[in-house]
Amino acid sequence: MTWCRRGPRASGGAIRVTETFTATDHALMARALRLAERGTYTTKPNPMVGCVLAHGDDVVGEGWHQRAGEPHAEVLALQAAGERAKGATAYVTLEPCAHVGKTGPCADALIAAGVARVVAAMRDPFPQVDGAGFDKLRAAGIAVEYGLMETQARALNRGWLSRIERGRPWLRIKLATSLDGRSALASGESKWISGEASRLDVQRWRARCGAIVTGAGTVLVDDPSLTVRLGDDTPFVAPLRVVLDPGLATVARGRVREGDAPTLYLHAPDAKPPRGLSAQTAPVAVHGGRFDLDAVLKLLAAREVNEVQLEAGATLAGAFLAAGLVDELLLYVAPVLLGSRARPLFEGLDIDAMTQKLKLTVVESRRIGEDVRLLLQPAQDAPRQ
Amino acid sequence: MTWCRRGPRASGGAIRVTETFTATDHALMARALRLAERGTYTTKPNPMVGCVLAHGDDVVGEGWHQRAGEPHAEVLALQAAGERAKGATAYVTLEPCAHVGKTGPCADALIAAGVARVVAAMRDPFPQVDGAGFDKLRAAGIAVEYGLMETQARALNRGWLSRIERGRPWLRIKLATSLDGRSALASGESKWISGEASRLDVQRWRARCGAIVTGAGTVLVDDPSLTVRLGDDTPFVAPLRVVLDPGLATVARGRVREGDAPTLYLHAPDAKPPRGLSAQTAPVAVHGGRFDLDAVLKLLAAREVNEVQLEAGATLAGAFLAAGLVDELLLYVAPVLLGSRARPLFEGLDIDAMTQKLKLTVVESRRIGEDVRLLLQPAQDAPRQ
Repeated sequence: MTWCRRGPRASGGAIRVTETFTATDHALMARALRLAERGTYTTKPNPMVGCVLAHGDDVVGEGWHQRAGEPHAEVLALQAAGERAKGATAYVTLEPCAHVGKTGPCADALIAAGVARVVAAMRDPFPQVDGAGFDKLRAAGIAVEYGLMETQARALNRGWLSRIERGRPWLRIKLATSLDGRSALASGESKWISGEASRLDVQRWRARCGAIVTGAGTVLVDDPSLTVRLGDDTPFVAPLRVVLDPGLATVARGRVREGDAPTLYLHAPDAKPPRGLSAQTAPVAVHGGRFDLDAVLKLLAAREVNEVQLEAGATLAGAFLAAGLVDELLLYVAPVLLGSRARPLFEGLDIDAMTQKLKLTVVESRRIGEDVRLLLQPAQDAPRQ
Repeated sequence: MTWCRRGPRASGGAIRVTETFTATDHALMARALRLAERGTYTTKPNPMVGCVLAHGDDVVGEGWHQRAGEPHAEVLALQAAGERAKGATAYVTLEPCAHVGKTGPCADALIAAGVARVVAAMRDPFPQVDGAGFDKLRAAGIAVEYGLMETQARALNRGWLSRIERGRPWLRIKLATSLDGRSALASGESKWISGEASRLDVQRWRARCGAIVTGAGTVLVDDPSLTVRLGDDTPFVAPLRVVLDPGLATVARGRVREGDAPTLYLHAPDAKPPRGLSAQTAPVAVHGGRFDLDAVLKLLAAREVNEVQLEAGATLAGAFLAAGLVDELLLYVAPVLLGSRARPLFEGLDIDAMTQKLKLTVVESRRIGEDVRLLLQPAQDAPRQ
């Protein structure tokens, strides 16, 4: 699991990795995490970050990173605090940056404002930071501690962390299933297994992604638009729609090319995109007639996609699973039976003994309308391919 | 649904069906229901009944029916209250009996003790009571009201009510399934899909049954004992173990004949039980090589079985479902994947269009160890065969 709490890493300076934080520390970091979470639909490809400035439990400023290119959480919190930032503790969900990106280094801003102590949930693994922010703060005489609620902070940014640390996006498979594990009838009909509430809920999960990936088969059978329809004014950055279509057989049609979001077709190297095609295309290696799924994910990471939601049929979903590339399964279990002639949830999982069963862990179980939504992740003790 | 609240029925006398009860009435009936529930594993084939005697909210006596042949709830509550029963209100989860069964009529006992008011959750549909208890109480000048928390009272005794009102036991199918809807591998191997906590939980559901039913195939492949192993000293009446075995092919072997519980083999009329067989046998009609499942349930009702738990393979489970005889599905969903070569949850459900899907309702969803336990019932708007 990439987002479990890691042990403290050696740092250049004498940064304190504190094991015991106060109740106030916990409460204010929890507040910073909730602030960070507000950026779920908009900060991508940047990480979500929240910041709270306080004297004791007296909050004097707070902020959260809203969009790439706009001010960081720390800067907004410092602006809100004004003079009262002096001598305050800054609670940040991620190590303050030390480099000049689209905005100036937050470490410098905290130093200039006279902050006395910085508590961070986690170190920033981004190569241009990676401890340099802590070092800078400490060199300026600020007390620095980190590791407070790191598990939660890593879970929040699991997409971004996956891209930075593993070079590939966090991959979630979204599926609707009947109680008897069927995702479509024998005819391919799948509208609708899950209820209305579940279908609306899916929109929120789409909105947090950098890309929604599907296969040519799904485009032909279901013709999904793969856009985000939240049903209210919540702002979001539209995810890229990606179609895995080796022969570019579906580029001429489909709702997946309509609407406001960009569309990218990934194709086999020998397929030729038609002239004048308005959508984006990119070749990906194919082995034995099948896409190199690892290469697909690496390509998306290079395009700064943090989180991918796969909304595809049993074959493509099964292929990602069999390749050991799935980080999360979002399963809407509808209280219906479709019978044994209906299509299976995953194709290509060949399991012959109980010891080979693919084990997952239920991260969350929740009722959504008439359905039950399960969020699962590969079990930590399961063999990873 | 047979255990939804029914509208008030006409009664011989002017029995009051009250729509507005006080908060105290609700609290004390809830207490009576919790008392009744203590008999879950022991009162069968009798209904569970609880009784609370109170002056206002001052409880002066309580009781619950523990075992068939032993005193009824009202009698135990009256014994506990002694002289203080005089002028009290009696809260009972079921109409007090008016007939002499294994014990004397409770209505007479309440009258003799000088109770002033009787509040019942529901009328007793048992032919020898069915309003006669209420009539007797009223004739003695006692205020009688009923219908308070009737939904809960009916849910509690859904097994007994099913037998009395429909002439067949309440049928629950218990199954363990993978996320992809598989109950066994292609080889038939099914040990174990669900976790240890789930397998212990199943024992409690077994303990409440009058019979646990399985098929000859399961006896041959899994060789289950089908006994109740609660792991503590909780008393229970052991359920009858029933094997559906048309040709009596499995009578010579199996753990289902060992242990302290009785075993009954149901067979085709032309099969002949071997001489000297210690287990019970009974013939049931067979049509086209398959048991008449309605006849199976009627036979069990005649043996005073209130609740049946079916623990069988996909074929028998599917046959009961297809026959529209299933009242409840107890599904342990284990967070594992078994792949599309594994065996389906139900055989014989032939569904060709989404409109034919079998709809259920999630009555309860709960985490049991690493699994998710779903309790489902056929949806009220679903067509019943």
